[in-house]
Amino acid sequence: MRVIVVGATGTIGTAVVAALGTRHNVVKVRHQEGGFHVDLASSDSVSQLFRVLGPFDALVCTAGLAIFANLDELRDADYHTGLSNKLMGQVNLVRIGRQYISDGGSFTLTSGVLSQEPMQGSTSFSMVNAGVEGFVRAAALELPRGIRVNAVSPPWVTESLIALEMDPSLGMPVAAAAHAYLASVEGDGTGHIIDPRKFTAK
Amino acid sequence: MRVIVVGATGTIGTAVVAALGTRHNVVKVRHQEGGFHVDLASSDSVSQLFRVLGPFDALVCTAGLAIFANLDELRDADYHTGLSNKLMGQVNLVRIGRQYISDGGSFTLTSGVLSQEPMQGSTSFSMVNAGVEGFVRAAALELPRGIRVNAVSPPWVTESLIALEMDPSLGMPVAAAAHAYLASVEGDGTGHIIDPRKFTAK
Repeated sequence: MRVIVVGATGTIGTAVVAALGTRHNVVKVRHQEGGFHVDLASSDSVSQLFRVLGPFDALVCTAGLAIFANLDELRDADYHTGLSNKLMGQVNLVRIGRQYISDGGSFTLTSGVLSQEPMQGSTSFSMVNAGVEGFVRAAALELPRGIRVNAVSPPWVTESLIALEMDPSLGMPVAAAAHAYLASVEGDGTGHIIDPRKFTAK
Repeated sequence: MRVIVVGATGTIGTAVVAALGTRHNVVKVRHQEGGFHVDLASSDSVSQLFRVLGPFDALVCTAGLAIFANLDELRDADYHTGLSNKLMGQVNLVRIGRQYISDGGSFTLTSGVLSQEPMQGSTSFSMVNAGVEGFVRAAALELPRGIRVNAVSPPWVTESLIALEMDPSLGMPVAAAAHAYLASVEGDGTGHIIDPRKFTAK
């Protein structure tokens, strides 16, 4: 399969590329210019990406910005970042990308456990992640031609916790989390929110 | 208690006002000018509302627009309506209203069963409703002074189904759904998503 990975250079994206790359033709997309790139906050940029990419069989998105800060610190613009980037950016990958995807193809978006398991500072993240999940459940009912859509809801991954100088034992290794993306791409489920902690590889 | 009801003239709002009105001092807020009014899509209008209202003990919001249409018909502007009005409008009632609410006061927002039980045409609604729920779960962790926040997730109500010429037996009477709002205002829960179908009045 020709699989597009948006956010291919991030912590999770790199692991997803590694997991998919042994079996599929992976096309990496990142935010920075040079090679395939996209600004998720711009629907024009998303449209341009698909025109350049052409047909594909699956798309995985592990990208998307939102702002982590206390409720009394988050400004209107901070909420807007999460809504326009991590939420509508991923929604637009499906809305626009469905015109280019193969029959039976799949979209795999990324939410995150903060949608269901919030913490102090996560109001914007929790709202955005839950929004991604609500969209996925609904969009699965309407996509034609056997096209599927799921979201992976990753927990904290060990590598991120180490980078943030937090306790790495709270997370799971990113390579393990990546298997949930593989399951979405290669499986036959749709409208699912996949928690890698509850996922058992086949 | 002095209880603000935003959306007081809508189908659910009218029933909530009736349920609360026998026991509390209810202040009705609507979208139309004349009396207390607010444009939920404008954080300036929300700020102005609270300056005019002054102190209060509880706020219930049963208002908020989103657009119902098929995935291939929804435009960028349609998604924006739901995000700016039903989602960020309600978020802003909490963000701004918390400066005016009494110690131990409560906010009760409205999501809707489409967050978890989508149907064709509900991608924007499902996304927005789920976002409201994600925000509520997270904001409950951060509100100071014993302030609580919950969302009621109403099912289709009989009165709306009749108005839409749909099968009324699919819904519950709006007066029954209103009890869930009463429970949020008078109870002690926070961070809860209350489904009136699962709610048993005390």
